[in-house]
Amino acid sequence: MHIRKQRLLTPGPTPLYPPALHAMMASDIHHRTEDFRKAYRSCLSDLKEVLATSNDVLMFAASGTGAMDATVSNLLSKGDKVIVCSAGKFGERWVEIAKAYGLEAKVLSVPYGQVVPPEALQQALAEEPATRAVFVQASETSTGAAHDVRAMGLAIAKTEAIFVVDAITGLGTMPLDIDAWGLDVLIGGSQKAFMVPPGLAFLSISPKAWKFADTGTLPHYYFNLKKEKKSGDGGESSWTPATSLVLAMSEALRYIKQLGMAKLIENAQMLAQATRAAVTRIGLELFAPDSPAASATAVRAPAGMDSGVIVKEFRNRFGAVIANGQGSMKGQIFRIAHLGYFDFADLFAVVAGLEVILNANGFPVNYGTGVAAVQEIYEAAAVRQPVTA
Amino acid sequence: MHIRKQRLLTPGPTPLYPPALHAMMASDIHHRTEDFRKAYRSCLSDLKEVLATSNDVLMFAASGTGAMDATVSNLLSKGDKVIVCSAGKFGERWVEIAKAYGLEAKVLSVPYGQVVPPEALQQALAEEPATRAVFVQASETSTGAAHDVRAMGLAIAKTEAIFVVDAITGLGTMPLDIDAWGLDVLIGGSQKAFMVPPGLAFLSISPKAWKFADTGTLPHYYFNLKKEKKSGDGGESSWTPATSLVLAMSEALRYIKQLGMAKLIENAQMLAQATRAAVTRIGLELFAPDSPAASATAVRAPAGMDSGVIVKEFRNRFGAVIANGQGSMKGQIFRIAHLGYFDFADLFAVVAGLEVILNANGFPVNYGTGVAAVQEIYEAAAVRQPVTA
Repeated sequence: MHIRKQRLLTPGPTPLYPPALHAMMASDIHHRTEDFRKAYRSCLSDLKEVLATSNDVLMFAASGTGAMDATVSNLLSKGDKVIVCSAGKFGERWVEIAKAYGLEAKVLSVPYGQVVPPEALQQALAEEPATRAVFVQASETSTGAAHDVRAMGLAIAKTEAIFVVDAITGLGTMPLDIDAWGLDVLIGGSQKAFMVPPGLAFLSISPKAWKFADTGTLPHYYFNLKKEKKSGDGGESSWTPATSLVLAMSEALRYIKQLGMAKLIENAQMLAQATRAAVTRIGLELFAPDSPAASATAVRAPAGMDSGVIVKEFRNRFGAVIANGQGSMKGQIFRIAHLGYFDFADLFAVVAGLEVILNANGFPVNYGTGVAAVQEIYEAAAVRQPVTA
Repeated sequence: MHIRKQRLLTPGPTPLYPPALHAMMASDIHHRTEDFRKAYRSCLSDLKEVLATSNDVLMFAASGTGAMDATVSNLLSKGDKVIVCSAGKFGERWVEIAKAYGLEAKVLSVPYGQVVPPEALQQALAEEPATRAVFVQASETSTGAAHDVRAMGLAIAKTEAIFVVDAITGLGTMPLDIDAWGLDVLIGGSQKAFMVPPGLAFLSISPKAWKFADTGTLPHYYFNLKKEKKSGDGGESSWTPATSLVLAMSEALRYIKQLGMAKLIENAQMLAQATRAAVTRIGLELFAPDSPAASATAVRAPAGMDSGVIVKEFRNRFGAVIANGQGSMKGQIFRIAHLGYFDFADLFAVVAGLEVILNANGFPVNYGTGVAAVQEIYEAAAVRQPVTA
């Protein structure tokens, strides 16, 4: 039982869009009926619309990692040469998947907080013309850093390789021109900017990537892109779908379409900008200052303070769940999320709470310092509350 | 929009337990918090309790087919000799999975409506001592027939092979003594007798089967039994879990524990018995008379009538979704479900509706004939409404 008011403030799961949550109450529905096919079709076509792509879109009953697995197991073969651009915990997940499936992976790895420069990728591609695929995170959720997937995609487009982009937290937080930038496979999940509980993954796939589905020899069954495409064209999924989440997703997509993906992105970017201004003015240090993502802002804990203290204090004082660092960054950084159903009022409270917590834990802050930075950006903002439009 | 009262009467998804449905409204929860770990742990331990096994229990964000895939890709190797007992569409799914992963499968196949006799399996095992695994459906949902998994399990236990049982509709409809019968891997899903929307799969795994996880060489990533076991021990899932469904499942399991699995099974069996009596008295023919399952009763449509007409009429007249035949049985049979949140009052309405529909479509029925059969069994029943206890 919750004994106090709770606030979910993490970069996934993110705060839920209430009508999407409520839509799940209609889950006593059968997936092989016209009522449900309508919802499934609208989900796929609305996703295609908000992703603004001419590529096919497929969905799975799985979390995002399932769609990452699906891409490798459906499009590649054992021994295939691939490049992984790894800038954090989720980059390392690509490395693990490549290893699990016996790919020959060249890993372009940078320290947490930095990103792989497109030039490094270009060089690696030049050195290995037989490269079959390049894997990256658009936004590396674990560090709050964003890759330049445009430059990467344009470089890869000149080669035989396909570009596989984990955009699980990139979608809705940064522009992603799938078709023009050559983002051959782009992966998303329900529990991020889409404001729906976790359990649905989706991806878009280009004609170039589809050709790989004809030649890939890795075994797979549950995740079957070709079968899912055929099923989806008939308004169905290959296996029993997560009906409740599809209903929620349909509702959230209706909202996102009305709002416009551009406004959703602008909202996250305004909040990210305000957060960076606030924590800097408070005297804290950004973790990824050179290539900050708008999905989440990672902030270094003050010297001598474990970031876990800040996370714990948020929970104890304000019932708020914010994100610690992941992997080796645990205890070093904390992360303030911006993707999806967040607005300035959320951020006022987060920054005010942060000031209180820092002050109480030996890092003096003049109350209101950081909040003022958010207020000033709110004043000047063109888009102030898109998520409540 | 539903324009009329709807009734979900299929063997999965099944009618939802309302408190489980409502529990999903608390989905604004983070999966790496103690609140959620509590729910996840209780789900795993309650599942273990209602499955009445000492084996480990693991869960996945996937539909049941995902857990079938997980079993093969984690426990076996390319070229492994296996036996598939196939008695319908889901038996064929095991054949497909075996093929997808390059197993050398001997298929013991029987016509739809029949089941593979344990003796046939025993003979096949004797002929191929190198058999590594045997696959079966406890209850073949597509035909409403049940395998004798007890006899099969006892035979397999004497060999080096593991017994993999798809009990997706077997659980909650037939006794399954996992430990005593040697059901090494037993697979279930949320949307069947567990009264929760689809999207969660689970399995129990025996020490004998765990040894296969050390030797299996098939590649896999998303479905990783060892990793999931380790995560589960810590109250977490390896990847982001389907939080909303875990909350629903926790609630449903609380109910099933209170009710007792034996009563849930008895309820399904009483309803199945009453259904068989009713349709027989009406003059229809059972599709699997010799080994009927209690998950669903498959009934042949009257000669010259497409079973799709009956399905359509149920929808149009009563807003009720009942199941047609699957695969080659489409148009031949229809299926009345009993698993999970069904009771006698549901069945009164189904049989009365069926009488009306048959009568209106050229198959004369004296109104009340079939209903009387259900009423008589209700009269005599020891367990009359366990699902509303």
